[in-house]
Amino acid sequence: MKSAESMQRENYNVQHAGETAWIYVNDRFVPQEQAKISVFDHGFLYGDGVFETLRAYQGKIFQMERHLERLAASCDRIGLSLPIPQTRWPELLQESLRRNALSDASIRVTISRGEGEIGLDPSLCSHPTVVIMAKPIKPYPADYRHQGVHLALVNIRRTPIAAQPPEVKALSFLNNILAKHEASRAGCFDALMLNMDGCLTECTTSNIFFVCQGQLCTPSTECGILRGVTRDVVMTLAKEEGLSVVEGSFSLEQLLAAEECFLTNTGMEVMPVSQVDGRRIGRSCPGVWTVKLHQLFLSNLNRFVDG
Amino acid sequence: MKSAESMQRENYNVQHAGETAWIYVNDRFVPQEQAKISVFDHGFLYGDGVFETLRAYQGKIFQMERHLERLAASCDRIGLSLPIPQTRWPELLQESLRRNALSDASIRVTISRGEGEIGLDPSLCSHPTVVIMAKPIKPYPADYRHQGVHLALVNIRRTPIAAQPPEVKALSFLNNILAKHEASRAGCFDALMLNMDGCLTECTTSNIFFVCQGQLCTPSTECGILRGVTRDVVMTLAKEEGLSVVEGSFSLEQLLAAEECFLTNTGMEVMPVSQVDGRRIGRSCPGVWTVKLHQLFLSNLNRFVDG
Repeated sequence: MKSAESMQRENYNVQHAGETAWIYVNDRFVPQEQAKISVFDHGFLYGDGVFETLRAYQGKIFQMERHLERLAASCDRIGLSLPIPQTRWPELLQESLRRNALSDASIRVTISRGEGEIGLDPSLCSHPTVVIMAKPIKPYPADYRHQGVHLALVNIRRTPIAAQPPEVKALSFLNNILAKHEASRAGCFDALMLNMDGCLTECTTSNIFFVCQGQLCTPSTECGILRGVTRDVVMTLAKEEGLSVVEGSFSLEQLLAAEECFLTNTGMEVMPVSQVDGRRIGRSCPGVWTVKLHQLFLSNLNRFVDG
Repeated sequence: MKSAESMQRENYNVQHAGETAWIYVNDRFVPQEQAKISVFDHGFLYGDGVFETLRAYQGKIFQMERHLERLAASCDRIGLSLPIPQTRWPELLQESLRRNALSDASIRVTISRGEGEIGLDPSLCSHPTVVIMAKPIKPYPADYRHQGVHLALVNIRRTPIAAQPPEVKALSFLNNILAKHEASRAGCFDALMLNMDGCLTECTTSNIFFVCQGQLCTPSTECGILRGVTRDVVMTLAKEEGLSVVEGSFSLEQLLAAEECFLTNTGMEVMPVSQVDGRRIGRSCPGVWTVKLHQLFLSNLNRFVDG
């Protein structure tokens, strides 16, 4: 272990030069080429685990506490003990930025059931696997923000709450992947998924909002969505600005009649949508509220970053 | 590569002594401790991939062609190119048995999207990952076959076809894992899952059958089940024996009123069920047809093995 540690230190300059990413695996940072897990990891065999994607702005992490709370809640819901205490995470996430010489970054945390023999029983795995990956932000093309993105209405329905609770941000992500494939085939940025009742839910990695008759509307958690961290921040900002926010069950027709539409997630922040299912949303894109909420998001960032 | 190959050959005797399992990863057999994949494998990050579990009896593989067809169909459905041609699989599976000195074995084949940067787009991954694991059969306790197993009726519903097609035997397996956890907490062998309409589907890794008024009943594929290979064989044997088989949509009440019940999968073959949701099924367990169909399964094995 000592020699691996000293080897890491020797390679440290390489990482600073941006040539090697340093990934935290279980108990230490290793160069990306060495960041490996057993093929018996139940994260790989069965998608048995959870993840979070956090974002750092100038070295400070957006809504870190909220993300860590959700990570703990996801683990708890699937009976997985988070192997690192909540108090140690801030330091590990900061170390992940430092090791990679990053200040603006996306940080993915993955916790899987760990290595174990074949079978669904969680007792086959004695130690959860922990992986932390910090990567530079890849900005979206400027056109996306100026002209808005297109969404495909896909055939794949969002997995219902009764089958896989969406508050578990699970490694078992094929539902969203299949939706994404449909969207890509349709030449669209992302997929809009309906639930089994035919109501709006979310896109493959983002929440959806639309403005209609002076109200900001977004599907409620009861529709089967992951309650996004950025979604909550945007709702707070909208309310502060006097815009009433309605969480509920909405039809595609209601969205198509909207004045404007946007998506939120940790990476997109607030992303305008110009078309859904080949039909234009509103008269111009980005909409007035979309621009205002994104500006408010950026100008209020210091309220929402930790550490 | 040469030296790794020769190292493997030197270790070959160890494997024969049963001390080391040899796992096929991508292009070669390696000792289990070296069987690793990148943490960037999308099988790990997103459950993006498929698998099959095959069974060898005295070196011959049960329904190999059917399993390989299903593997190819699963890959095809999620837009994954099977990186090994169909014609090479028989030799690889046999090599997997030989390397591990196994004749009666369970063989799990896993194909994932492969290594790639973070994101749902399949084009991020250039090469699918292939893993083949052969392990000795762990027989079920004799009591299970003599007295039958208990099933819990769980709250988790089977993911609907519209959200994740069950004919894709996907790495994203959390739906079944959550059901299995519920069954374990209830002290049961396995979980019986209903679909969103409240009709019977299957257990976490097996299909369910019951005999009622001289008919063998089993949920149809339209109910949202994986069409099991052993399920098909048992239906064939039942029909040959003059038992009519009904595939359809069934309620829990119909199952509870049945004379007997059993499960099928590649490992269980035909497994009697004595209780569902705390209630006894039929007058005695194992039922007459359960015993007969298992006997027929074993006595007809030679018709169903390949290679």
